This record gives sequence, structure tokens and C-alpha cells, in this order.
Amino acid sequence: NMANVKLAIVYYSSTGTNYRMAQWAEAAAQEAGAEVKLLKVPELAPEQAIAANPVWKEHYEATKDVPVATSDDLEWADAIIFSAPTRFGTLAAQMKQFIDTQGGIWGAGKTVNKVVSGMTSAQNSHGGQEATLLSLYVNMMHWGAIIATPGYSDASVFAGGGNPYGASVSVDQDNNMVEDVEGAIKHQARRTVDVASRIVEGS
Amino acid sequence: NMANVKLAIVYYSSTGTNYRMAQWAEAAAQEAGAEVKLLKVPELAPEQAIAANPVWKEHYEATKDVPVATSDDLEWADAIIFSAPTRFGTLAAQMKQFIDTQGGIWGAGKTVNKVVSGMTSAQNSHGGQEATLLSLYVNMMHWGAIIATPGYSDASVFAGGGNPYGASVSVDQDNNMVEDVEGAIKHQARRTVDVASRIVEGS
Amino acid sequence: NMANVKLAIVYYSSTGTNYRMAQWAEAAAQEAGAEVKLLKVPELAPEQAIAANPVWKEHYEATKDVPVATSDDLEWADAIIFSAPTRFGTLAAQMKQFIDTQGGIWGAGKTVNKVVSGMTSAQNSHGGQEATLLSLYVNMMHWGAIIATPGYSDASVFAGGGNPYGASVSVDQDNNMVEDVEGAIKHQARRTVDVASRIVEGS
Amino acid sequence: NMANVKLAIVYYSSTGTNYRMAQWAEAAAQEAGAEVKLLKVPELAPEQAIAANPVWKEHYEATKDVPVATSDDLEWADAIIFSAPTRFGTLAAQMKQFIDTQGGIWGAGKTVNKVVSGMTSAQNSHGGQEATLLSLYVNMMHWGAIIATPGYSDASVFAGGGNPYGASVSVDQDNNMVEDVEGAIKHQARRTVDVASRIVEGS
Repeated sequence: NMANVKLAIVYYSSTGTNYRMAQWAEAAAQEAGAEVKLLKVPELAPEQAIAANPVWKEHYEATKDVPVATSDDLEWADAIIFSAPTRFGTLAAQMKQFIDTQGGIWGAGKTVNKVVSGMTSAQNSHGGQEATLLSLYVNMMHWGAIIATPGYSDASVFAGGGNPYGASVSVDQDNNMVEDVEGAIKHQARRTVDVASRIVEGS
Repeated sequence: NMANVKLAIVYYSSTGTNYRMAQWAEAAAQEAGAEVKLLKVPELAPEQAIAANPVWKEHYEATKDVPVATSDDLEWADAIIFSAPTRFGTLAAQMKQFIDTQGGIWGAGKTVNKVVSGMTSAQNSHGGQEATLLSLYVNMMHWGAIIATPGYSDASVFAGGGNPYGASVSVDQDNNMVEDVEGAIKHQARRTVDVASRIVEGS
Repeated sequence: NMANVKLAIVYYSSTGTNYRMAQWAEAAAQEAGAEVKLLKVPELAPEQAIAANPVWKEHYEATKDVPVATSDDLEWADAIIFSAPTRFGTLAAQMKQFIDTQGGIWGAGKTVNKVVSGMTSAQNSHGGQEATLLSLYVNMMHWGAIIATPGYSDASVFAGGGNPYGASVSVDQDNNMVEDVEGAIKHQARRTVDVASRIVEGS
Repeated sequence: NMANVKLAIVYYSSTGTNYRMAQWAEAAAQEAGAEVKLLKVPELAPEQAIAANPVWKEHYEATKDVPVATSDDLEWADAIIFSAPTRFGTLAAQMKQFIDTQGGIWGAGKTVNKVVSGMTSAQNSHGGQEATLLSLYVNMMHWGAIIATPGYSDASVFAGGGNPYGASVSVDQDNNMVEDVEGAIKHQARRTVDVASRIVEGS
């Protein structure tokens, strides 16, 4: 029963792509009956760096009221979808710093059996869209999480570029998404919630 | 209810280490109530290469009657534990060839939601014991499998060297295991069966 | 002086994509003055599997005379470009088997300081084009090779889909390449030879 | 001629392990004739987190005068050795943040052909000592760097645990190194400088 699943969608976004991806995931998970928290991770960049980039600045201001993810949110969640852009083929440092600071709940065994999947974005179609998600899952294996990537479990995966590790999208120089990943993201969100519902029910 | 879980333990072993690891996993899974098949993958090495290495030859002869894994076995299974030695940091080609030849059941969607974990061995403590398991999980994400590695979900993991990606062991020049991994392997087998029982029950 | 560089291009190809990629690399390396050997790895598939696929069969017959790569070829080479399709996100088993069987020259220290890079192909744009090359480089680190991937060192990389780990291409259902990777491949070949020439000169 | 090589050793250390590793690398590289800068990356943790851990606090104070690495340092360098502890199997966020903020020199093509290798530490022998270094090299491939890991190019590698991706060490609960990695680190430093000297000479 998917109504029993608590899902945290934890994202980092500078110019809005991963925020939009997170919102699509939120919509699909809520429709499937899950209780969802949409949460951002803290920014590491100094205010002047943000101010120097109008698109970044605009997104930063527009999402000021999105709650910041905490260890309590992760502890609350049965499932977690992470979404963050690539930086040189691994997770943006903002997301990595958030993950690194969960040593407390990790040491207390509270990350075990969380059902997780990830999403990402990059400027080039082969510019880290696979490698970034794989780096996330390395972290998640340390957490004892249960990793449920989409694989090729639905036709929507192919339309989004066929990334079996999680939905990913290319962003062009005008900050527009290149591939149509909405379907793949919604499938991934439903799948993550479905797997989590089985884990929760069976416990 | 773990009694409902069908587990395939698919291994490749030249001189016996991964066979022994597979047997420990088999014992723990059976004790947990799972139905278990212990299966080897086909050898790729020519007979003369095997004959030239007495330890390899002896193990090869001693395990002649172990059934060879097939696509039907994977289709039958709810969960799969793979065990194979490293070769230069990724799965031994014998195991990779077995995986590559599952295109039929993969294309038919029959690999989706299998619960998987992996085990490995190497000659050096940092000589591929992590990287080999990570390469297996890349394959499994293509299959749409659900990956349930041990993480640090039990004290036995630390005794075996603390590999969160799966049990792994160093083998010395006399073909003896260096670390005590029996406990970590048995925990991993129980965990794989536990997660699979939840997936099966919930479906 | 690139005229001093000996380059082995070692490929596996079932339906011709990686063979064509290898030929582009060969042309560029020869033009740069390198001595080049174009070599295939042994097939693992049974004859009847090949016969059942007309495109595979045709390519298999058409390349019967391409020499098979040996350890001697690797020992001869200053630089190696590997090219093989993905199979579930890591190297096709045919290539892995070839790599695994180089234990002899590896144990003798003869793989150290080879300058290497890799190329690959997949059916989906995010379906292993990154992960497969990363799995090759894990193997190469065991060899003590020097890894010189293209990164974003030339504009041609972007035209080919922007894969910093090596040239890669998507293949559609009619076995046609989707992206234009010829430029990226030729740049990669020149770069591999350039780096190797410096290593050779400096030794 | 190794006297021509400029080497930046860029580290992050909370309780001193990677600082000591960096110092061993510095000594060996200087002895080989290289010009060396030993540099730390900025801390991300708040002062109170550091103050709450006496060992961290002590190391933090003791290394206050170590210069902080900048983009100019990387531009200056022919070779870079990175050293940072694992955090859940990938680079500590402090190091990742430093890497992420090099977009300026990356976009200007100034990271191409830097010769790089990495070192790391972890609490468990299989707890990220391989995976962390592999995550660094993914970043470096985006930079167009030339990756020269030790492989098994020297007997000292085996004594340090046999990590072909770079020197790594386990740290026990009393903050002591478990394996003897000094030899492996000094070999790696010499090798990095050697490869860089060839790249520089040949350019």
C-alpha cells in the first residue's frame, strides 16, 4: 500500500533544473499516495558568486522558502530520491557535503534499508550523467540503503535517453532541458515508492 | 516470511575461494528458510591452462557436478548472490560472459526486481575488492535489479574488513583466506533473503 | 616526435560499429606518424549465435583477416586504444576475457607506462557510454598504464556528445551511428599518440 | 629531468592522516628534484564542530599556516597529488568543493595535461579506499588530466596493501595508521614526478 510510504526528495539546484525534476517526482509520488517532503540542501557558494549569475540568483531567491533537509527528515523517510547536477562527473559538492554530514544517523544505524534512487543533469549528453549517479550509489551502499534504479523497467526510460541508473537530462546553453525526461522521472518516483512500500510492509 | 524466497547463488571460482564463500552463503540462506540453488558459471579457460595449475585443476575436477547456471535459474530466482574473484578490478570474464548472455531474459523484462548482492576475492587487500563489486552493480542497474548490499548493518561486516559493497576476502600465496569473512557472508546472505522476502510478499 | 610511437588499436565488434571507430582512430594515428596495428580480440560467442544474426554474421566474415591481438602486440606497443561496445554498462566479455588473459605480461611488469584510452558504443545515449569506459580504466590502473582521456581538450569532443572519458556513440535499431563522432575519435587518437610520444621520448 | 617539474600536493585532513601522507609525498618529490607546494583546501565544517573534536581541533590549529590551495597553484603545477579521506566511498566534500570551484581554469583549458594521482584513508580496509580514488579520477578525466596511478609498478605497493589506484591507509580508533604506506607513498610521488617530467620535456 503506497499510502504508507514517506518519501524525502532531496535536491540541489543552482539554476532550477534539478528543482523542476524534483517537482515532477513529487507530483508522481503524491499521486501514488505517498507522503512527500521536497527539501533542498544548503548552498556552499558565497552570496557574491550567486549574485554574479542572474539565473542562479533568480532561482536562489525563488526557492528561499523551500525547507532545508535535515537528518531528522532522512530518519523520517522510508525512501529518498536525490537530485543534483554533475560537477566533473560526481555529485555537486553541496549535495556531497549534505551526505557527509549525516554521520550521526549513519552511526546510529538509521540509514539502513532506506530505499533510494537518484537523478542528475549535465551540459553534455555523456558529460557525467551516468558517472554522477554511480557516485551517489557508492555513498548509499555505505549507508546500507536499498538501491532501486529504474533499469529499463518502463518505456519512458528510453524516451529520456535510456539512463538505467536514474533519470538524467542535458541542459543547453539557454538553461533548457534537451531530452523529455518528465515521463522517466515520474516512472522512477512511482518505482521508488513501490519498492519502499514493499520494504515497509514486510518489516 | 523467508520460506517463500528462491535464491540463486551464482559463482565463478578457479581455485576454490569463491566456491567456499558461496557455500557459506548457501548454508545461511537455507537456515533462514530460503530455497537455494548453488550454481557455477561456465569456464572460459582452455583445458590445458587449467591442467597447468594443480590447484585450479583439483578444484575444477572437484566441482564437476555443480550445476551450471542458466537463464531459467535466474528467472526462477527472487534473489541472486553473485560471487567471483577480481581480475584487474572488475568481474572475472567468466562471470561477465555469463551476465552478457542474459540478453534474452533482460529483453523480456524478467530481470527486473531481482534482489541482488555480490561477493569477491583478491590477492591484495586494496586490489579490487571494492571496485569489482561496484562493477557488478553497474550491470545489475541495467537489469533493473534491487541492490541490497550489507553496508554496515551488522558487526560481522567490520570483522571481514568492513566492505559495505559485499563480503570480500584477501587470498594469500598459499591460497588461504586472510580475513575471517564467514560471519559477514552469512549476514549478507540473510540480509539478501530478508529484503527479497519483503519484495516478494509485497508484490 | 610522433613518428616514434607504436600504437595498438584493440577492438571487439559484433556488428561493425567499434571496428569503424577503430579504423578512424587508425587513420588519424597514421597521419600523425605513428606505427599502427589494428587488432581484434577473440570472439566468445558460438558460431550458431553469430549465424543467427545476419548483420553480425556479415561483419564476422568481413573481418576474418583482421589479426587477433596477442600479448606480444601489447608488449610491442607504446600506446593502446581499446574499443568495445557496452554490455550492461561494462566492457563486453570478449574484451574483458582478452584483458584477463594478459596476466603473463602484467606479472612481468610489461604493462607499466603504456599510454591508453578507450572508445565504446551503446544503444541508448545514457546506456553505459560513460560507465563502460570507466570500467576499462579500472583495469588499466591495475596495469600501471598512463590514462590519457580526451577530457574537453578539443571542440570535436562536444560534437560527439561530450564524453570526456573517450569517444562513444549511440547506435540505432538499424545499426547506424547517431552522433557524429569521427572528429572526436580522430582527436582522441592524436592525443593518445601525442602523450605516448612524450612518455617514450622522456624514457 | 625531474628538476623541471612543479608539483602541487593538495590535501584535506581533519585529524592529520592525509597531512602526514602529503608530507611523505613532499619529501620524496623534493628529493627527486621537483619544486613542491604543499597546500590544504578550505574547511567546510563550522568552528564548533571542529572544537567538539579535540584531535581535529589540534590538527586544525597545528596547520593554520599551511597555505590554502588556489586556482593559480593548479595553473602553476605540472603535476598534482590529491590526498583526502573517504566519506562514504567518495572524496570528502571539502576536497570536492575545492575541485568544483575550479570551473574557471577548467573552462580556460588550463587543467589539460596535468599529471595527477591520488591518496586516501579510511576506517576500514575495504571501506572506500578504492572507490574514493576512483571518484577522484572521474573528476580528473573531465579536466583532461593525465592519470598516472602506481599500479603494481613497485614492491612498496604491496606492503601498503596493494592499492593500484593510489596509496591508501586504514586508520584505527586511536587515529593510528594500520598499514605501512610510507614506501608506497614515496614511490607514488616519484612516479608522478617522473611521468610529469616526460610530459613537460616533450611539450
